[in-house]
Amino acid sequence: MTRIDDLPIREELRGKSPYGAPQLDVPVRLNTNENPYPLPEPLVERIAERVREAARELNRYPDRDAVELRTELARYLTRTGGHEVTAANVWAANGSNEVIQQLLQTFGGPGRTAIGFEPSYSMHSLISRGTGTGWISGPRNDDFTVNTEQAEKAIAENQPDVVFITSPNNPTGTAVPAETVLALYEAAQAAKPSLVVVDEAYVEFSHGTSLLPLLEGRPNLVVSRTMSKAFGAAGLRLGYLAADPAVVDAVQLVRLPYHLSAVTQATALAALEHTDTLLAYVDQLKQERDRIVRELWEMGYEVTASDANFVQFGRFEGEGGAHDVWQQILDRGVLVRDNGVPGWLRVTAGTPEENDAFLDAVRELKKEQEQSA
Amino acid sequence: MTRIDDLPIREELRGKSPYGAPQLDVPVRLNTNENPYPLPEPLVERIAERVREAARELNRYPDRDAVELRTELARYLTRTGGHEVTAANVWAANGSNEVIQQLLQTFGGPGRTAIGFEPSYSMHSLISRGTGTGWISGPRNDDFTVNTEQAEKAIAENQPDVVFITSPNNPTGTAVPAETVLALYEAAQAAKPSLVVVDEAYVEFSHGTSLLPLLEGRPNLVVSRTMSKAFGAAGLRLGYLAADPAVVDAVQLVRLPYHLSAVTQATALAALEHTDTLLAYVDQLKQERDRIVRELWEMGYEVTASDANFVQFGRFEGEGGAHDVWQQILDRGVLVRDNGVPGWLRVTAGTPEENDAFLDAVRELKKEQEQSA
Repeated sequence: MTRIDDLPIREELRGKSPYGAPQLDVPVRLNTNENPYPLPEPLVERIAERVREAARELNRYPDRDAVELRTELARYLTRTGGHEVTAANVWAANGSNEVIQQLLQTFGGPGRTAIGFEPSYSMHSLISRGTGTGWISGPRNDDFTVNTEQAEKAIAENQPDVVFITSPNNPTGTAVPAETVLALYEAAQAAKPSLVVVDEAYVEFSHGTSLLPLLEGRPNLVVSRTMSKAFGAAGLRLGYLAADPAVVDAVQLVRLPYHLSAVTQATALAALEHTDTLLAYVDQLKQERDRIVRELWEMGYEVTASDANFVQFGRFEGEGGAHDVWQQILDRGVLVRDNGVPGWLRVTAGTPEENDAFLDAVRELKKEQEQSA
Repeated sequence: MTRIDDLPIREELRGKSPYGAPQLDVPVRLNTNENPYPLPEPLVERIAERVREAARELNRYPDRDAVELRTELARYLTRTGGHEVTAANVWAANGSNEVIQQLLQTFGGPGRTAIGFEPSYSMHSLISRGTGTGWISGPRNDDFTVNTEQAEKAIAENQPDVVFITSPNNPTGTAVPAETVLALYEAAQAAKPSLVVVDEAYVEFSHGTSLLPLLEGRPNLVVSRTMSKAFGAAGLRLGYLAADPAVVDAVQLVRLPYHLSAVTQATALAALEHTDTLLAYVDQLKQERDRIVRELWEMGYEVTASDANFVQFGRFEGEGGAHDVWQQILDRGVLVRDNGVPGWLRVTAGTPEENDAFLDAVRELKKEQEQSA
């Protein structure tokens, strides 16, 4: 049998394993920040209808520039983001991962570097490496907020070509203030002009507002978004960005032609017709997220301030402490995420019933620990 | 207004334009090798049905490994390719372009090179460049077949990490004999082990058989395929490969997690249920392709032997000769493709009516030329 390492693969891939959360068959899955609410049936019907229509022309290549979809995404951003954008400002791809990959192929790549402030969304570093972009791990404060001064210093010292700012941050949950983003943007332009990517995958769940208005007059700023979370459409794989039209033109130099299928475009358009219904679910999830924070806090757990549909909690001392607790929660039928942040775990806000199951499990754990102490 | 070149993009992208055929609104479009037959209505209904089902779980991430789809693709290959493959041999992505991109990220990339024998499918060189892989343009004979001896020599001299063989070749149309592929595979293993990718996007239209049986005992050989052409589903963006299971494992080190949406998987599965109907269209298209070859020949044009759903014809002398003829055919309402092969144009086999329109246009042209001569 041939093994991977018998093949002439790139040296840096040897001994690596594919990225991805364990997919386990567990009653309550709160590990990948999915939206627990299935799409409402009228939207399911509308998707079937729009895809049926698209399927009648499936023998033809899709609209390479996805103009209708970008127009509707722009309308959504304008309505909800506090800043007017048009189709010329918007680009869409198969998940925000592909958006990030295209940005790195255009602005990063061999001989260039990208920086992120870790812990953060691990795909930023993984896609950097996958595109040959050198990765620089920037610092955070102990409470997981971005330390503006230290971050500015890291940018000045390393002169990266791409700066990632995740707001709200994943897996820690806290949003980044506009003044921090502005300071880092200035720092990133000071030595040489660099691209700053604000990853707003979870912004609809935030207590605050989107950073979209910062795009005004800042051609090297990009805001990336996804339909996986707020739109409850992780299975659709639709990510997008808003930026200066020149950035949208630039990523088209590296995008694979016809990258976005006609069925993806049709499904996304159907979902965008139902924005209001889907955003109502977001409100419910925000309330549940706040309840999880409150109850964990009352139990005596530490919790990182969350603007997302998930909560980071701890602190679990000792080597492997967090992973042991992860296993104990799993033993109670609830799958949460061990993102490798020492001492901390992450739980996605699910339905009230799922959250009860999670909270009961950790309450039980807490009691056992107190009794054995 | 900011222009692309005002942005901190990679140096090698400066001054470039996005790849893609002109999308013109013309009555008869025979320029992108699309299948002219819309999917049959029962299949359209089945797609709507399967997508409706998938949409009910769209809030969840898709099957990251696309196991059901890979199983059905393997079944199709086994049935039609003369070689037994299983899901472990098959990998799928958003179009064969993404398959090729993943292969180059795994086996090519910065500091490595790929070779193709040109003219051939131009995305091989474009995606090589996009992944930082150095591109080597290998030679062909004057009749556009691969010159085995010269190709072996080019491989021995350049020691590329990836070798592309397009069979049937695009844009010229001719299939590559198995003995040539075997010789080039041996040459590619001789100096150092290299990956050999046989791009069979058009193989269902061939007079001969698939090169799939060559996979046996050759772990560094890959056959890539697409549902865009024979399956009449260019809008779906579904490409796939067959290879040793180790190759399938290896590309998972670079694939973006959850790259293939649930709606894409559902739609492809529906299409695979209707394989026999779709292959019947392929038979019609092969007959029409042969008719185009025959009639062009009878008119006195030169034609490259075609195993694909398109025909390369010429020869148009003088600088810009082919492009002038392209424009004259377009003026008659028929869009064909100028792939930049000096003296030659490419026409896709359409419906009998579309092909008549094309043949009438070039017949008229020929007459005018003869009268003015």
